[in-house]
Amino acid sequence: MTAHSDLDPRFDPIINRVGTSCSKWDAMESLYGVSPQDGLAMWVADMDFKPPACVADALAAMHDHGVYGYYGDQTAYKEAICWWMQTRHNWHVDPASIFTTHGLVNGTGLCVDAFTKPGDGVVLMTPVYHAFARVIEAADRRVVECELANTDGHYSLDIAAWDAQLDGSETMLVFCSPHNPNGRVWSRAELQEVADFAKRHDLILVSDEIHHDLIYPGFTHTPMSALDGISDRLVMMTASTKTFNIAGAHIGNVIIADEGLRARFAKRMGALGLSPNSFGIVMAQAAYSPTGAAWVDDLMVYLDGNRQIFDAGINAIPGLKSSRLEATYLSWVDFADTGMDRDEFTRRVQQDAKIAANHGPTFGKGGESFLRFNIATSRAVIEDAVERMQKAFADLQ
Amino acid sequence: MTAHSDLDPRFDPIINRVGTSCSKWDAMESLYGVSPQDGLAMWVADMDFKPPACVADALAAMHDHGVYGYYGDQTAYKEAICWWMQTRHNWHVDPASIFTTHGLVNGTGLCVDAFTKPGDGVVLMTPVYHAFARVIEAADRRVVECELANTDGHYSLDIAAWDAQLDGSETMLVFCSPHNPNGRVWSRAELQEVADFAKRHDLILVSDEIHHDLIYPGFTHTPMSALDGISDRLVMMTASTKTFNIAGAHIGNVIIADEGLRARFAKRMGALGLSPNSFGIVMAQAAYSPTGAAWVDDLMVYLDGNRQIFDAGINAIPGLKSSRLEATYLSWVDFADTGMDRDEFTRRVQQDAKIAANHGPTFGKGGESFLRFNIATSRAVIEDAVERMQKAFADLQ
Repeated sequence: MTAHSDLDPRFDPIINRVGTSCSKWDAMESLYGVSPQDGLAMWVADMDFKPPACVADALAAMHDHGVYGYYGDQTAYKEAICWWMQTRHNWHVDPASIFTTHGLVNGTGLCVDAFTKPGDGVVLMTPVYHAFARVIEAADRRVVECELANTDGHYSLDIAAWDAQLDGSETMLVFCSPHNPNGRVWSRAELQEVADFAKRHDLILVSDEIHHDLIYPGFTHTPMSALDGISDRLVMMTASTKTFNIAGAHIGNVIIADEGLRARFAKRMGALGLSPNSFGIVMAQAAYSPTGAAWVDDLMVYLDGNRQIFDAGINAIPGLKSSRLEATYLSWVDFADTGMDRDEFTRRVQQDAKIAANHGPTFGKGGESFLRFNIATSRAVIEDAVERMQKAFADLQ
Repeated sequence: MTAHSDLDPRFDPIINRVGTSCSKWDAMESLYGVSPQDGLAMWVADMDFKPPACVADALAAMHDHGVYGYYGDQTAYKEAICWWMQTRHNWHVDPASIFTTHGLVNGTGLCVDAFTKPGDGVVLMTPVYHAFARVIEAADRRVVECELANTDGHYSLDIAAWDAQLDGSETMLVFCSPHNPNGRVWSRAELQEVADFAKRHDLILVSDEIHHDLIYPGFTHTPMSALDGISDRLVMMTASTKTFNIAGAHIGNVIIADEGLRARFAKRMGALGLSPNSFGIVMAQAAYSPTGAAWVDDLMVYLDGNRQIFDAGINAIPGLKSSRLEATYLSWVDFADTGMDRDEFTRRVQQDAKIAANHGPTFGKGGESFLRFNIATSRAVIEDAVERMQKAFADLQ
């Protein structure tokens, strides 16, 4: 494995993304006050890597053909999705159960729209991906924050507390598996607890599994769909965009086995006139392939190297604690033990280390003392980031 | 002008689109029973042409950079839209009034969702683009078909009849300007009548101007936004996809000057988690440029040549009447005077001429005796189509 991670020509080169209209590098200054000229972008969740060659080749073939009209038959595209889920996740997917949305923020918004009413409570297990709360609130539903238990950096469910917290006005749970931002791969037993919780409170269970392919050695992701007795209330969400770094393609999979839920979702997609763009379809189909799979395997070896270097470097700073990621490339760093207030540790990261990282409170309750660092970048940048952080917090050493 | 139209290396070559997942050529057999091997695809509204080189070059530049992450700052993209509207349509657009939707079917669906309630009547002036009725009905609103007057193939408004028809339950009008499928460029006086009609019946006026760039010599398109006293109920819809043949990019402009309407629309887009894909943004920005404009000018010369050949050939068949297009590349052919029933003339077009054309009734009331033919293809195909039609209806000559 070290042969891969020591020097990998696919991941090691630093690709200059400044001035390419990419959110991560071009919006960092306006959002975090960190200049891309001497700063590091470690916030929004895309990678500084090219996707696998099969994806770029598919785009090149579109360019060579040169006519970009309405896309037609999606059979091969949906077969590629089914092949991926079966091969990589031992999950049998019926092509008829797949909806192609414009990414999973759109997928979440459509679930809220199709399955809840204004005023309903929608449960989130916080801290969790910030866009969930944004779409729930924009739709005039209420966010119900059920805080995860954090024991020395290890997150777990707190079902008894949540059972006491809910008041019957809740109709949906948006669950994140693997979890963003703490990187947990939930065990089968934990998933069963979540499923039972959803049943007990009669909640539609939306399982956002966008990070399901980004699992570190020693952990196994179980799709929520593998559990018995949950399919009649379950919506699964996955995407090629996170796995293969093609977020700009804005394409996601919402997979609904239950025919009643499926019809309700289909009706809203039809009413909103949503259909996928050709670029997303072509790239996703190319990605969901044996070549794409081999690339993901190598990617995870590289990311695991980044993770180890980042964690070791951050955890060497007294008072800082980087959660041990089981999945994702989003390191979740707790500054609570520095004794600093949020403004101070944020200022040091942004102004001294010149690193743009996501602010913890945007992830909801329990995120107050955290920053989230995106480690999906070249090894050299990770080493640089660690050095900058150690300097910025040198007085703690 | 003939120098352009006689032989234009950008439009004359026949590009084989079969097997490229394009809807137009790959779905014609399942939908119309016409094989792409020996048939002609003249239905769905995209062109068999490559977009201008500036668009293809922009895509090539994305491929060369190779990282397709989240798109960032849309300032330059929105400036390009504003430049286009000002330069080509003498229409001043505030960048803050532009929403980027996933095309205009999505745009229409969002308008229905944001500005009407279930059960409301939504007015269409039929025959008109079929997707309007589809999204209105999927949203549990009622389609109110106000039939255009057709005098010997020339369509006009029938305001007095519509005033009598409406019952006060209507809240929105989706207007099509230039009109698809009859190809009318509405005069300023007609637009004023439509605006007055919308005011009189208190309707939100959604003006679908997707064909605004595809105007034939001798006609001038006036944006509905140019009229006085309508902006407080007006939603404008335009797109680069139709003008530049990049429908696969799924990107459209919904432009709302009124701040109250804008806020309601923005809220629904936010709740549905909609944001544009990078490929569409990059291609549209490249298209809305002086180079793109020159290409459109040449395109219209070529299409005008196609139109003249098609009309002359079709109108030479006794009983067939091709509406004189003032805009669009969608010829609207009336078979009423053949004395044949719909099954028979459709059978002859599909089975004898082997041409896939849109069926008139899908466009609503008034479309019963029509087929719609897409003439945005190489000149040789148009000549072939005319010959096939003359043979298929040879007994009428």
